[in-house]
Amino acid sequence: MIAGMWTRDELLVQPTVHFSYRWQIQFQDIDAAGIVFFARILGACHEAYMRFWLSQGKALREALAHKEWATPLVHAEGDFLRPMRFGDEVDVQLVGLHATERKLYAGYRIVQASDQQPTAVAQTVHVYVSLKDFVRVSLPQEALPVLQPFYTSVGEGT
Amino acid sequence: MIAGMWTRDELLVQPTVHFSYRWQIQFQDIDAAGIVFFARILGACHEAYMRFWLSQGKALREALAHKEWATPLVHAEGDFLRPMRFGDEVDVQLVGLHATERKLYAGYRIVQASDQQPTAVAQTVHVYVSLKDFVRVSLPQEALPVLQPFYTSVGEGT
Amino acid sequence: MIAGMWTRDELLVQPTVHFSYRWQIQFQDIDAAGIVFFARILGACHEAYMRFWLSQGKALREALAHKEWATPLVHAEGDFLRPMRFGDEVDVQLVGLHATERKLYAGYRIVQASDQQPTAVAQTVHVYVSLKDFVRVSLPQEALPVLQPFYTSVGEGT
Amino acid sequence: MIAGMWTRDELLVQPTVHFSYRWQIQFQDIDAAGIVFFARILGACHEAYMRFWLSQGKALREALAHKEWATPLVHAEGDFLRPMRFGDEVDVQLVGLHATERKLYAGYRIVQASDQQPTAVAQTVHVYVSLKDFVRVSLPQEALPVLQPFYTSVGEGT
Repeated sequence: MIAGMWTRDELLVQPTVHFSYRWQIQFQDIDAAGIVFFARILGACHEAYMRFWLSQGKALREALAHKEWATPLVHAEGDFLRPMRFGDEVDVQLVGLHATERKLYAGYRIVQASDQQPTAVAQTVHVYVSLKDFVRVSLPQEALPVLQPFYTSVGEGT
Repeated sequence: MIAGMWTRDELLVQPTVHFSYRWQIQFQDIDAAGIVFFARILGACHEAYMRFWLSQGKALREALAHKEWATPLVHAEGDFLRPMRFGDEVDVQLVGLHATERKLYAGYRIVQASDQQPTAVAQTVHVYVSLKDFVRVSLPQEALPVLQPFYTSVGEGT
Repeated sequence: MIAGMWTRDELLVQPTVHFSYRWQIQFQDIDAAGIVFFARILGACHEAYMRFWLSQGKALREALAHKEWATPLVHAEGDFLRPMRFGDEVDVQLVGLHATERKLYAGYRIVQASDQQPTAVAQTVHVYVSLKDFVRVSLPQEALPVLQPFYTSVGEGT
Repeated sequence: MIAGMWTRDELLVQPTVHFSYRWQIQFQDIDAAGIVFFARILGACHEAYMRFWLSQGKALREALAHKEWATPLVHAEGDFLRPMRFGDEVDVQLVGLHATERKLYAGYRIVQASDQQPTAVAQTVHVYVSLKDFVRVSLPQEALPVLQPFYTSVGEGT
C-alpha cells in the first residue's frame, strides 16, 4: 500500500484542528451489525476535507462545476477504535493537511462529542488531475490560495 | 495505522481468487468529480467479503440475526489506481483471507471485466465480537467451518 | 399507491416548520448526471423526521436500542422541483406530522437556504411495529409524549 | 403530488417484466431498525431502470459522458409491503415503461426470489433535460431507438 503521512498515534494527538463538523449518526448510517458501516466513517472523514474546501471560497466548487480540475484519492486508510451507534454525536476533525507539488495528504480524527474520546482516525492521499482527461497535473494555480499554508516544496518522486 | 497483511503489489498479483462478483457501476456510485466515490469502492470490496460468507452457508447471517457475534473492522485501506465510471463493469475479487484466533484479514482486487486491468486494491482487518456487549472474543466456534481453510494458529499479541 | 396526507401544493405552503436542519450538499450526494440523486433527497427528508425524534428525548433511540418498537415506512413519495448541486446549502424542513392510532404521516419541504425557493417536497407514511416480531401494533405508549401534539383519534381502517 | 401512472395493485399484477436483476441484500443496505432502508429500496428500483438502459446499448451512457442529455426524476413513490433483511435475495423488476414526448414513466416491483412474494412496488416519473443548461427538452432523438416500443404520442400538458 502507498504510505500515508501519519501513524495512528500521531493522528490521535495532533493538536491542531483545521476544520471540524458535528455528525449526528443517522438511521441509514447503521449496518447489519448495528453500528456505523466502516465505509461511511471514511466518507464522513472525506466530508471534513470537502467542507474545509467549501469553507475556503469557491475554488474547488468552481473547478468541479467547470470540469477544470479535481483532487481524486489514490489512497485511503482508517482505524476504527470504538463502535458508533444511531443518535451518537461525534466531531469529525481535519487534523492534518499537507500539500506538495504532486500530492495532497489529509488526516482525520473522530471523537465523541460528549467526552472527546476518539472513535476513529483516518487519512487520505490525493493527486491533482485535469478533468478534461483525468491526467495528473501539478498543484493547480487556483488551489494555491487555499493550500499555501499547508504547502511544502520538498520534492517527491511521483 | 495498524499494519495490513499485504503490500499493494502483493494484492495486484495474488493468484487465488476466493470469491468474485461482477459490479456494474451504477448512477448513484458516482460523485461530483464524475467517478466512483472512493468509500463506495471500499464498500464494494467489503461486499465481496460478505458475499463470500453468504455463499458459505448461514453461519454469519444467523449470528447477526440472533445478535450472537460479528466481525467488525478495526482497519481498512485501499489504493485507487484508475477511475471507474457509470456503466463500467468490474470484477470485485476476494484475493486473500487469513484468520487467526483474534483477527481476520481480507485482501481485495478490483479489475475491469473487459481487460482484467486492476482499478483498485484494498484490505480490511476484522476482529470478532460478541453482539451482546460488543466485547472482543476469540474466533467463534460457528465461524470455524468457514474459516478453517484460512486459519493459522500462529499467535499475535492483540 | 397508498394515499399520502398532503398535496404537493399543500406541502409547498405549510406555514409551520416542526423541525429543520441545514444540509450542505456533499461530494457523494451527487449522481452521474451531476445533481443530487433522488433517493438521497428522500433519505434527507427522512433524516428530518429522525432528527426531530432525537431532539425530543430518548424514546425512539431506546426503543431501537432495546429492540422494542420502530416506525417503519409503508409509503414514501416526493416531487423534485429544482436540481441541487455539490456545495449548495438547503434547509430540510419537517412541515407536517400527523399521528393516528395505527399510522404516522410526515410531510417535508426542502428550500434553498439563500432564497427559500423550494427544491423538493416529500411525505412518508409510517406504521408502528414491535421489533420482537415486526408485527404491527398500536401507537406505543412511550411514543405518546412526543406524538401527542400531533395526534388525532379519528379512526382509520388499517 | 404529481400523479404516477399506476396504482399499487396494478404494479403488483403487471404481467410483463421488461428487465430484472437479482439483488442480494447487503450489510450496508440495513438501517438502525434492522431492515433495508426505504430510500435504498427506491434506489434499487431506479437501478433496474438504469440497468435496462445499459442493456440497450450506449445511448444514455454516452449522453451522460458527453453532457448531452439526461432523464432526471420529477417524482418518485413507493409502497413497502414486507421488510427485507441482510442476505435476502430479491428480484427487482421493471414492470412498466411509458414514454411520451415530455415525460417518461417507470414502474417497479420487487419480489422475494424464493417464493415471488412482493416486498415493494414503486414508480418514477422522469423528464428529459439538456445537460448544457438543465432545461427541459422533448424526447431526445438518440433515446428514441430504446424508447420507441414504449412510446405513445398522446399529448400531455407539461
